[in-house]
Amino acid sequence: MVRWEPGSRGRLEAAAMALFGERGFENTTVAEIAERAGLTERTFFRHFTDKRDVLFGGAGALQELLVSGVANAPASASPLEAVAAALDAAAALLQQRRAGATVRQAVISASTELRERELIKLAALATALADALRGRGVKEPAASLTAEAAIAVFKVAFESWVDPSNERDLPRLIRDSLAELKAVTADR
Amino acid sequence: MVRWEPGSRGRLEAAAMALFGERGFENTTVAEIAERAGLTERTFFRHFTDKRDVLFGGAGALQELLVSGVANAPASASPLEAVAAALDAAAALLQQRRAGATVRQAVISASTELRERELIKLAALATALADALRGRGVKEPAASLTAEAAIAVFKVAFESWVDPSNERDLPRLIRDSLAELKAVTADR
Repeated sequence: MVRWEPGSRGRLEAAAMALFGERGFENTTVAEIAERAGLTERTFFRHFTDKRDVLFGGAGALQELLVSGVANAPASASPLEAVAAALDAAAALLQQRRAGATVRQAVISASTELRERELIKLAALATALADALRGRGVKEPAASLTAEAAIAVFKVAFESWVDPSNERDLPRLIRDSLAELKAVTADR
Repeated sequence: MVRWEPGSRGRLEAAAMALFGERGFENTTVAEIAERAGLTERTFFRHFTDKRDVLFGGAGALQELLVSGVANAPASASPLEAVAAALDAAAALLQQRRAGATVRQAVISASTELRERELIKLAALATALADALRGRGVKEPAASLTAEAAIAVFKVAFESWVDPSNERDLPRLIRDSLAELKAVTADR
C-alpha cells in the first residue's frame, strides 16, 4: 500500500535546495535529501527520478505554459506577439517563485553539468515554441527564428532577474529584453 | 622521438567519419579509427583527446573566426552588422567543407549525447560573441541579445544547409535567415 505524504514533494524540494546550497549538488545524496525532509528514499523516488530532477522537474510545466500561451494567443497576433504573450504568462508565474529561483540558479551556476542541462532545457523550450508556432500556421524558417529569439529574450532576462542585485521583476525584464532585441535587429 | 605522419589528422578524421557512419558513434573505438587510418592509437591521441574531439575539434577555430570577425568589423558597424560580417566569414569557410559537414551532421543527429554537445558548443559561441561585442563597447543586454540572435540565425541556417535536399550555399542561407529574423522582430 502506497502511503501518501501530504506536502512531501515541497518538503523534498526544500530539503534538496538547502543541502545543494550547503554542500554542493555533487556532494548531496538522495538518502540525505530524504533524511533532511523526514521522509524515506522511497517517497523521494515517488516524486523524482533522481536528484537532478529536483532542479529540472519544473521544465515540463514551463514548457506547457509557453506552448499553451502561443496556441491561445489571438488569431490576429504576429508570431512575435504570440511568443511575447506566452513569455509574459510564464514570467508572471515565475515571479511568484523568485526566492526559490535564486537559490536554484546558484546551485546550477556552480556545476558545469547543471549549466549544460539548463542550456539543453532552453533548447528544448525553443523547439516546443517553434512547434507551437507551426501549429498556428507560421512557416519555416520564421517559426524557428521567432522561437529562438524568444528563448534568447527569456534567457537574458532570466539571468538579470536571478542576479542578487536585481530589483526589477521578471515580466518587466522580459519586456525590456524584447524591446532591446527589436532595437538591435532593426534595420538602419 | 616523435615521428610526424604527414596528413595523419585528415586521415584519422576521414576514418572516424566513415566508421561513425557505418556502425554509429557509440560502437566505434579509437583503436578501430587508428587501424582504419593505418596509424597507431598513439598518433590518434597526438591529434585528438578522444573520439568525440574528432567531431568537435573544429569548434575552437570557428569561435576564433567569429570573434575576430566581430573585432575587425568597421568601427561604424552596428552590433548586428558586426556579427553579420563574422557569420559571413565563417559561412564562406564552412561552405568549402560541405561534404564533411553533412556526414558530421548525420553522426550528431543520431546521438542524444552528441546533439546536446552541439547545443553546448553553440551556447559557448554565443558567449564568445557577446564578449567580443562588449570589447567593441556594446553594452548589456544589447551585447548578449545580439550574440544570441546571431547564433539563432546561424543555427537555423546551418540546419537547412546540411539537409540533404538543400542546394543553397551557407552564406546565402545565413543572409536569408538574418533577413527573416529582422522581419519577425520588426515592429508593426
